[in-house]
Amino acid sequence: MLRKLNPRRLVECVFPILQWSRHYELRTALGDLIAGVTVALTLIPQSIAYASLAGFEPQYGLYASLVGGFVYGVMGTIPQINIGPTALLSLLTFTYTNGTNPDFAVLLCFVGGVVTLVAGIAQLGFLVDFVSTPVVSGFTSAAAVTIASSQIKGLLGLHFDAETFTSTWRAVFQNVANARLNDTVLGLSCCVLLTGMKALKDIRIEESEDGKCKGRAMVKRGLWAASVSRNALAVVAAAALAFCLHRDKDHPFILTGHITAGLPHPRVPAFQTTVGNGTVYAGGMLAHLGSGLLVVPLVGIISNVAIAKAFSKGKALDATREIVALGLCNIAGSFFNSFPVNGSFTRSAVSDASGVATPAAGFYTGLIVLLTLTLLTPYFYFIPRAALAAVITCAVLHMVDLQIVKKLWKTNKLDLLPLTSTFVSCLVLGIEVGLGCGVAVDVLLLLYYQSRPRLQLRYVQEGSLPPHYQMHPVGGLHFASAERVRSELMALNVGRQTKITRVEVVTPDAILTNGGAGPEPPKLPPNLLIVYCDALSRLDYTFLQSMNMMVEEWSRDGHVIWCGAQPKVREQLEAAIHNPLFCSHDQLSAVLIGLSSVTQVGNVSDTQL
Amino acid sequence: MLRKLNPRRLVECVFPILQWSRHYELRTALGDLIAGVTVALTLIPQSIAYASLAGFEPQYGLYASLVGGFVYGVMGTIPQINIGPTALLSLLTFTYTNGTNPDFAVLLCFVGGVVTLVAGIAQLGFLVDFVSTPVVSGFTSAAAVTIASSQIKGLLGLHFDAETFTSTWRAVFQNVANARLNDTVLGLSCCVLLTGMKALKDIRIEESEDGKCKGRAMVKRGLWAASVSRNALAVVAAAALAFCLHRDKDHPFILTGHITAGLPHPRVPAFQTTVGNGTVYAGGMLAHLGSGLLVVPLVGIISNVAIAKAFSKGKALDATREIVALGLCNIAGSFFNSFPVNGSFTRSAVSDASGVATPAAGFYTGLIVLLTLTLLTPYFYFIPRAALAAVITCAVLHMVDLQIVKKLWKTNKLDLLPLTSTFVSCLVLGIEVGLGCGVAVDVLLLLYYQSRPRLQLRYVQEGSLPPHYQMHPVGGLHFASAERVRSELMALNVGRQTKITRVEVVTPDAILTNGGAGPEPPKLPPNLLIVYCDALSRLDYTFLQSMNMMVEEWSRDGHVIWCGAQPKVREQLEAAIHNPLFCSHDQLSAVLIGLSSVTQVGNVSDTQL
Repeated sequence: MLRKLNPRRLVECVFPILQWSRHYELRTALGDLIAGVTVALTLIPQSIAYASLAGFEPQYGLYASLVGGFVYGVMGTIPQINIGPTALLSLLTFTYTNGTNPDFAVLLCFVGGVVTLVAGIAQLGFLVDFVSTPVVSGFTSAAAVTIASSQIKGLLGLHFDAETFTSTWRAVFQNVANARLNDTVLGLSCCVLLTGMKALKDIRIEESEDGKCKGRAMVKRGLWAASVSRNALAVVAAAALAFCLHRDKDHPFILTGHITAGLPHPRVPAFQTTVGNGTVYAGGMLAHLGSGLLVVPLVGIISNVAIAKAFSKGKALDATREIVALGLCNIAGSFFNSFPVNGSFTRSAVSDASGVATPAAGFYTGLIVLLTLTLLTPYFYFIPRAALAAVITCAVLHMVDLQIVKKLWKTNKLDLLPLTSTFVSCLVLGIEVGLGCGVAVDVLLLLYYQSRPRLQLRYVQEGSLPPHYQMHPVGGLHFASAERVRSELMALNVGRQTKITRVEVVTPDAILTNGGAGPEPPKLPPNLLIVYCDALSRLDYTFLQSMNMMVEEWSRDGHVIWCGAQPKVREQLEAAIHNPLFCSHDQLSAVLIGLSSVTQVGNVSDTQL
Repeated sequence: MLRKLNPRRLVECVFPILQWSRHYELRTALGDLIAGVTVALTLIPQSIAYASLAGFEPQYGLYASLVGGFVYGVMGTIPQINIGPTALLSLLTFTYTNGTNPDFAVLLCFVGGVVTLVAGIAQLGFLVDFVSTPVVSGFTSAAAVTIASSQIKGLLGLHFDAETFTSTWRAVFQNVANARLNDTVLGLSCCVLLTGMKALKDIRIEESEDGKCKGRAMVKRGLWAASVSRNALAVVAAAALAFCLHRDKDHPFILTGHITAGLPHPRVPAFQTTVGNGTVYAGGMLAHLGSGLLVVPLVGIISNVAIAKAFSKGKALDATREIVALGLCNIAGSFFNSFPVNGSFTRSAVSDASGVATPAAGFYTGLIVLLTLTLLTPYFYFIPRAALAAVITCAVLHMVDLQIVKKLWKTNKLDLLPLTSTFVSCLVLGIEVGLGCGVAVDVLLLLYYQSRPRLQLRYVQEGSLPPHYQMHPVGGLHFASAERVRSELMALNVGRQTKITRVEVVTPDAILTNGGAGPEPPKLPPNLLIVYCDALSRLDYTFLQSMNMMVEEWSRDGHVIWCGAQPKVREQLEAAIHNPLFCSHDQLSAVLIGLSSVTQVGNVSDTQL
């Protein structure tokens, strides 16, 4: 897209707002306004909850929600996407900044943003393709289970420090006797309420037959609105309850408590900070964040590209532009004390259902977050922690994808291996290590398959041609398959072909696989091998070297013929193999008959006598 | 091989000695004896030198040489292979045990042996195939350069501690002013001598015309013997020189010094040891060895399989058996204070040239090492270190493979990337990390290529069929290529096909690639896509999911037809895609015409009128 150096097109390409704002009408603006406000009603309670998930005070969640909408509004192309705090990135932020202070999270946001931006500009988005769906699914499900587990202490009003899935559950069992009744009742009630309200929008109201009954339509719209704003309603209701029940300093629930009011002061992300009594400098901070500097942007990019793909609805998606926009959201956010952010599937779905038309919806969402930060923070004091825990739990549980197990079983059972190994290793070893394990399993599986290419080996005894072996290899052949192909072909040559189960036997009557009742290959194997090179595109040195060894062996008392090689492949074979025999498809029969008469001179003479 | 449960065959299979010893004749034995002795003449000076390379006293080199010959003689199948200390494994041993004591090396040998054995029994040998030739070559060359660099201090008589390539050269430059004249002269003289003697065996002595002149043949054989035993001769000569020149305690060269005489006491490898003032237990020792427990066996297996392949001379090689034998050599060796051992290419070549016939040669080599340990160790006192450094340097420099650069340039230039990245990262980051980097580059390259499968997209406008796109994908399609294939096909559908350079245009007259002067694809793209599934074997879930998205998009105003799918592929497509259109090759024209008349009803009616 950036190839044409027309400056106006270039600017428009970088700032899509210049394109869509030209046709921005009142009708469109109204849709965006409704969507923006609805998203804000989901975003604000979520962001307060996710801040506690990431280990920070509630206002940091709002800081993280502030900038994304504005920046994505200018840079983004998918109207539905809302950039802000998400459960996944909040959990990752907690993993990498646990025991430090928000300065680390802001630095993580900044550096992660830069990494994302660079990856976008360098067109490294294709790396995301190497993370397969089963791995993403296993990772997401494990993250959801980890997050939900971490919220149990909030739901039950417990106090303990635990980071991983296993340590959390151990701590829950050790502390369950100390559960606070009030918090437990409130937390579980909120869960039930939220689950019920979520179901509201699925209630079917029969349209009256003439389609004119406005009452029913209103009820339907009301139910939908209640369902979409359920997080806000639940939090406000719980806070009201806590306010009503409190006596001076005696509170029935564990509350959010005093938080810093007002907008964040814009400032360059801190490259040194104080933890405990010591000062940590940039090097130390970056060393502490460690692999998070790559894992956080990677997960952000994967989620965002997946959401963008889901909502691009068949329009060609410019992944590069989405990745660049995400990077800039994070960089800009880090100047306003944000921790790492990305697109949320839940909020994007809400936005979509609310009739969003352009990325301008982000502006309205951002404005409401701005108002909230300015005016509403004092009222956050009374929000019970159990209610926030319920909001998180209900939000993440739908991320657990059980459907995929059934789908994988039906389509490709082997994909259950990366799925389960990712899921289990995420829970046991932590979600960031687990993601690495999943990708490794995927790559190993791929390599394993690549090392077993389809060769379509055939023993042919047909017509006037001498009996010979045919090989129709498919796909690129390279180091992973080199040894296997070589040893199979060598085994053919030394007459141990009975071990090879993949050789088909072709006779004038039929094609039979080895297992069939057809004729066995002869005891003395034929000394001709034809390799059909039509489907070969790229051979690497390791493979060529193996082929050279194989050909040397065959050449003692036989011939290997390379049929139909393209110029590039032919050149490679010529460079690697001593005197290779090439022929086109047309020449093949002539070459075969010629070779056979040369090598079997005795036989030919016998026949001639 | 192990499938047939005939006990006698099973035992013979595990101990190949039972097979070949039945036909063991005097003639064979003589060949083995000569080979065994010749190999010992190379092995003994090398093993003393490699012990110092690994950071231990000279007798440890002999301990490491002792057992391999006997065990491989019983378990091995390739007569040429001699298992003992090698430059590569000595360097790796030094890397992982530097600053500790020999107990760590013995434990590394034991655990490495167990890992090798398990890998052999579990048939994990195929993992070696995933290390491509360019990576092995880059690794070996870098190791040779590192080893040669580490010997410079010996050659110049310097004293400093340095482990890596970069730190060694820094130290050499800092200390070069302290170089000892005597040692430098001796070291360089030995290098010149060894290089010259190596060349002796290549001198061509013209055979007299009647072929009966015994004198010339004797000269030729004498030159060859001198060339093969050059290490022993150089070390003995240098030691004699050092003995003649010494005055009481005043030695002109840095010498090997007193070493422990006698055979090693057989004992179970120590699982606890004393370093400095503290005791280190098994956990601590294993933790210190760390990744060495996998890297050392991996390198051992790779080298051994490569050597076995080179000397198997076309006979089918049972890699599993070789790996098992190597593992047992290491395990048995560790009971005699051996550090990790494997096959040496140099010694195997010597053995081959000496006319070895069976693995029994290992017994004779082992016996000579035994005699040496019993009788000769006192005389090792006078061996100058500079001479040993010269032996190592001359032995490893031929491991630097410059030829491969030329070969890669000719066959597959892209393979220069893993080669150079392995070489450079081995030198800069250390050889064990470098090997990992090389494998990672290889895998990334493979993934990159896998993500760009050959699709053979064609726009066909020929005969009576409606214009349509054809795709002939080749090879397995999977997660790495999913996104790319999807986006290309989506782009076709939305009419942006001008961006796709790989579409060929087929007209009644000719097949033209896009770049040619042929007709451009029409502005309105056809709405039919035929995917020829003949060459498809395995589709994974990620790919199927992408195809589902693609088909949904095409189905709005067009059709995707899956032609010639095999039952397995068909089943997968049916499970993943909503109502896929299948047809056999025979049905294709009928289906195409049928679909076209349905979708273009208007046109058809016009024509009919």
